[in-house]
This record gives sequence, C-alpha cells and structure tokens, in this order.
Amino acid sequence: MISVEDAQTRIKAAFQPVATETVALAELCGRVTAEDIRAQTDQPPDAVSSMDGYAVRQADGDSARSLIGSAPAGHPFAGTVGPHEAVRIFTGSVIPDGADGVVIQEDVDILGGKIVFTAAAIRPDYIRPAALDFRRGDVLVTAGHIVTARDLALLAAADITSATVRRRPCVAFASIGDELSAPGAPRRPGGIVASSGFGLAAMIAKWGGVPLDLGILADSAAEIATIADAEADILVTLGGASVGDHDLVQHALGARDFQLDFWKVAMRPGKPLIFGRLGVRPLLGMPGNPVSALVCAMLFLKPAIAALLGLAPGTIARGTARLQCDLAANDRREAYIRASLSRNSGELWATPFDVQDSSMLTVLAKADALIVRPPGAPAAKAGSSIEIIPLADL
Amino acid sequence: MISVEDAQTRIKAAFQPVATETVALAELCGRVTAEDIRAQTDQPPDAVSSMDGYAVRQADGDSARSLIGSAPAGHPFAGTVGPHEAVRIFTGSVIPDGADGVVIQEDVDILGGKIVFTAAAIRPDYIRPAALDFRRGDVLVTAGHIVTARDLALLAAADITSATVRRRPCVAFASIGDELSAPGAPRRPGGIVASSGFGLAAMIAKWGGVPLDLGILADSAAEIATIADAEADILVTLGGASVGDHDLVQHALGARDFQLDFWKVAMRPGKPLIFGRLGVRPLLGMPGNPVSALVCAMLFLKPAIAALLGLAPGTIARGTARLQCDLAANDRREAYIRASLSRNSGELWATPFDVQDSSMLTVLAKADALIVRPPGAPAAKAGSSIEIIPLADL
Repeated sequence: MISVEDAQTRIKAAFQPVATETVALAELCGRVTAEDIRAQTDQPPDAVSSMDGYAVRQADGDSARSLIGSAPAGHPFAGTVGPHEAVRIFTGSVIPDGADGVVIQEDVDILGGKIVFTAAAIRPDYIRPAALDFRRGDVLVTAGHIVTARDLALLAAADITSATVRRRPCVAFASIGDELSAPGAPRRPGGIVASSGFGLAAMIAKWGGVPLDLGILADSAAEIATIADAEADILVTLGGASVGDHDLVQHALGARDFQLDFWKVAMRPGKPLIFGRLGVRPLLGMPGNPVSALVCAMLFLKPAIAALLGLAPGTIARGTARLQCDLAANDRREAYIRASLSRNSGELWATPFDVQDSSMLTVLAKADALIVRPPGAPAAKAGSSIEIIPLADL
Repeated sequence: MISVEDAQTRIKAAFQPVATETVALAELCGRVTAEDIRAQTDQPPDAVSSMDGYAVRQADGDSARSLIGSAPAGHPFAGTVGPHEAVRIFTGSVIPDGADGVVIQEDVDILGGKIVFTAAAIRPDYIRPAALDFRRGDVLVTAGHIVTARDLALLAAADITSATVRRRPCVAFASIGDELSAPGAPRRPGGIVASSGFGLAAMIAKWGGVPLDLGILADSAAEIATIADAEADILVTLGGASVGDHDLVQHALGARDFQLDFWKVAMRPGKPLIFGRLGVRPLLGMPGNPVSALVCAMLFLKPAIAALLGLAPGTIARGTARLQCDLAANDRREAYIRASLSRNSGELWATPFDVQDSSMLTVLAKADALIVRPPGAPAAKAGSSIEIIPLADL
C-alpha cells in the first residue's frame, strides 16, 4: 500500500506529452498550447484616441483651433495638424500627424468652424500610444497553458488565426462485472446499472481528453483481456480491482503482458487502485464503487491526462475552508470526506455529510467539496482550517 | 445612468425560459434541467454486501458454519442460509435469504468445508440495505439545475436514459466598426483586428448558449439594421454604443423598431451599455473596447442566458479576498478592477494590476479575478477583505 502522493508521482512519471495539431482560433478554448504564441502585430498598431473629441497640439495652449477635418475610427486623417488646427476624432481614431493631445468634446464649443475651449483640458493621456497593449513578437500565451475565453480575444487582437496545441488524449474505459447492465436495459436478478462510466466520460472531456467507452465486460478473463486491443493513450478499468475471487483484472490482463507498477493506495475511498502497463499502454484500474472510482479519477486520472497534455503540475485545485464541526483523528489512510460548503461573513465553511459510504452517489452529487484528511491527521476542532478540493466544476 | 444592480434586474426581467428538449443521458453534462428527475429504481435494488466474505446468521454467534454455496455479484444465491450455514459473497453480492450479517474473509479460516472464526467479527454494518442510496421516485436532480459529471453517474445508477432540459439559447452577435477586420484578413490603414467576438463566443458556450457570429458590420445604418433579421434569443452588438457621431447603433436600429430600456450604466469599465428590444428580441449593446465588452458580458449577458435557461438567480459566483495594497476611494461608478490572486497560508490575496485601461486585453487575460468596488466605496487598506469575481473558468 503506497501513499496518494507516491501514487500520483509514479503515475505522472509514466506519461509523455502527446503529439500536436494545428487548431483554428475559434476552436482553441480549453485546448493546451504546445508552443509559445507570439503577437503578429502591435496593438494598437497606431497611437489612437481613447475618447471622442479633437486632436490638437499641446504647444498651442487653450487658444481656439481651426477644424481642418474629421478622422473616424478606421478612416485616418491624411494630412498633418498644424499650429492652431484641430481634427475631429473618436474613440479608436488614429491620432493624426502633428497632434500630441486630445481635448474631449464635452470641453469645447464649436463656433464658426473653430473649436473654443470651455475648460482647460488638453490631455495627452487620452492618447493610447502604439503597442500600449502588446508589441509584435511579444509572447501572449506560453506553452503548456489551457487557452481561456479571454485569451481568444487577446489572440484575435494579435492577428493570430490558429495555434499549435496538444491533441486531445484518448482515455478508453471499460466497466467490469457480471452484475452490470446499461441504463434502460433489462437488469439481471441482483444486478445494478453501470454508472461510474457516465460520470467518468464527462470528467475526461472536462479535463481535455476524449472518452472512449469500451462498454460493460463480464467477469471473464477472455472478455477483460480485450481491453488490451483498445487504441488509447491510457486504459481504465472500473471494478474488478479488489481482492475477491471474482476480481479478475490482474489475472485476466497478465495473459496480455500486464506489468504491475503498484496496487492499493492508502486512501479512503478508493484503496484498491491498480496502476501498471498493459503492453505499451498505461493502465489505471479503478475500484468498482462509483464514489471510489470518481474520487480516484480526480486524484489520479486527471494528473495523468494533464501529463499527456504537457500541463504543468498542480492541476488539482485545492483550497481551504473552516470546519463546521469536530472531526475525529484519521487513521493511516488519506481520507476524502464529502462535504457541503457555505459562506458566512466572507469565509467558507465545510460541513461533512454524516454518511460517507463509497456506494452512495447521492452524497457525492450533493457535495460541494472533498475535505482532505492526511494519514495520521490528529482530531480537528470545529472552526479550524482544513484543506478542501472544490467539486463545483465536476 | 443606472446602477449595475438595476441594470441586471431589468435585464433578467426581460427574459422567459426557452423551450425544452429531450437529451440522452450521455449528453446531459452542462445542460439545465427543466423538470425534476426522479429515480426509476431503488439503489441498491437489494441488500448487498460491502465486503468480500461470508453471509451468515447473527443468531449463530461465533460457531463454525457449513459453506453451502457462493454468490458472486450478479449471481444471487437461490436458496436460504439456515442455522450454522454460510454463503460465500463478494462486494456487491446480494445478501441471501436467511442471512443478516457478514463476516469478512480476513476473519475466518476454511477447514473441511466449514468456516471457522479467527476473530469475533460478524458485522451487520457490512450490509448495505436496499435503497440505501435512493428509492424509486426520489427526486435526484431538481428542475433548474446545471447537470454535473457526478449527476450523470447518479442518474445512470437510477436507470435514467434521458431527461428534459432547456434547449441552448442562441446568442447572435455582431462586431461594429469601419476600423475592424477579421484575424488574418488585410487590415485597412488605421484599422485593428476585431477581437471581442472570439472571447464572447467562447463565454456564451461556457454559459450554456449557442453563439451565432453575425460578423463585422461597417459603421452604416443599413448594415447595422440587418441585425434585426437574425434569428436568436438575444441580439448583441459590440461597439457603436458610445456617444460619438459614429456611434450608430441606436440610430440605425430605431428604423427597425428599437425600443430603448436603458443606456449607460454607472460602472467602469463598460459605461456605454445599451439594453432594449429590437422588434420581439431583447438587444444588449456592448461597448467597443474589448475589456469593457467582456466584463459587461460577465455582468449582463451571463444573467440573461441564465434567465433563458430557467436557472435560479445568483449565477455570478463571487468570493472574497484580502487586498494586497491600499485602494483609493471609488467614485460613483462601480469599478471592476483586474487583479491577480495568490494564496498565502490558506488565505487568498488580490493584487490589482497597475494599468486598468479598458483597451488592454493582456491585463484581462492575465487577471485571476475582478475586484468589485461599489459606487462611493471608501478607501480600502491593505489587508482588508474585498469582494471578487473569480475569472478562472473564463
């Protein structure tokens, strides 16, 4: 039995980033960059006005100016602003040659083709200099970054039309057990509906992978061995990872060149986790209980996908909250306690659910966070600060 | 000029939930339920073992038991466990008739077809009673809820194959301005690349809508008026919402039966926001500056989409952080200050960026949060607690 941290380290070490592909700008959100992305242009390309008003020369002070033209955004003024001259401009208009200041329209009157100041308000800071936001060649997004919606706007402004990203890693998974059937399908006596795979597939997609459902396999060595034929970057089994006579995964896969790395992690829920290599492919054997399987996915499959995507470590967002009630000392297994969160005068409070049975999906679905209790953690008093993994996006 | 809160209230009041559609279980993640979803089965359907071991009668104490059969998960035992009898069971096995306890395999020896206790450990709590997780008819997911990955597993376990959800609302948007061109397209002198729409489209999708890009429209009343022909649940203009001679949106749309609700919101960035009705369709006119446009989208378009989806209010997740530096008193416009976040001994700290120009997408892309400064907020000292809108998922 190894620690959660050791297990995560071994898993991450088993993966290399996948190949890259070129993706159009509009499709980049959520993808992981494989190279730095550099601006193709200065932004703004020219000095522009940040206000509606008049471009003038500061040296002329508050004397009246002759209005010699207009330069809407997208229609730069062709000439030069000379002494005692002004050009009508708007937000985003290029500042004409010769001008070095802007007076806003609220501060002038127009009298006989001249602008006359009603307030002393020529403001050089109403000019946005060229390249204020970024300069051609600047790195706007670094390699190994998940592209955000905001990044898309930034990259568009920089005249980027596509970028090189990691392809989405394929995660193939199979649900194992004679007792399982699909939702809506006839159930055998004593049978249950296979559930973990639906949650797992959605999580894989959220983490940037492509889920490939290999379906439900019977507790038969021959059926389980077919997993070895799946084309994927990582193989996942759900169930069959415990110790009973009918836990067949290791036995069945041994015939297909399964090399065990580790089996059993000191955690609750989720102890019977398997990791190894099935031929050329990494294989993660998850517990059959759905809560255990989904918690193991968050702790071990997410970092595996992150490693395949070339993401920096630290992909499991953690936070802190204050404990709403006392917690007993923990044993030697790291505990992931389902809890609800509430906000009270600006602070986050976590309340563990009374029942933590690893078969209860209602409790996992209701939970806002997992409270993390390290091995051997002493009893914790209500009000103390504890580590949490928020579940809001899952 | 109205307050942010008034603007949000008026916008939300203008929308009714869209029609519903039936969606298959595997496609439900992120969709919004239109009806309560009730379990189609008990879970577990029968009392089952939570451990690998032997099903026995508690009344027989720690006497040896004759092993009369085996019941793997999915293969219930057909007979009844009588006095001094035991049936081999596994995690998930149905508890056979007659048995009311489980002894785990670690606590017995097998001797001549009998099990012999090595520890006094018959445990009724190793039995999960039928319907421990949920009962047929229980509401598992309520109406108006965004379905999570965890919900998918729960619904699968409950034998749900599809659900009634709101269709995704369509948000049509146009970028307005003679100065604009698409990324990669030739730029006119003094022109810039249209950028806000790329960020907006990705945000619309994240918020559960379908973006429809109407492209770049010139500063011409005739072109702008074509927006009225778009089929969408809400129309959005980017740019043309300020006060200059070339801000044509209201003028152009007036010819197409535009009824203004309000114009200008007391906020920074983003003051020149327009809301009204263009024929039968609500229209949100966003500022042209990309930072202003995207902040306005978070504050006004997200609640509009939420209202179209029938989501409960409170869709803008807020949090708190401690201020890393002093902030001056605020004027009468609510300020949304781009800031970075860092964690220090369990607490979140917010550091405002020095430059807050509403044209600077680099600053928005780098930001982890917006600090919210209400109108008239007094100066805030370093270390004080302030309200933030986290940007991590955008």
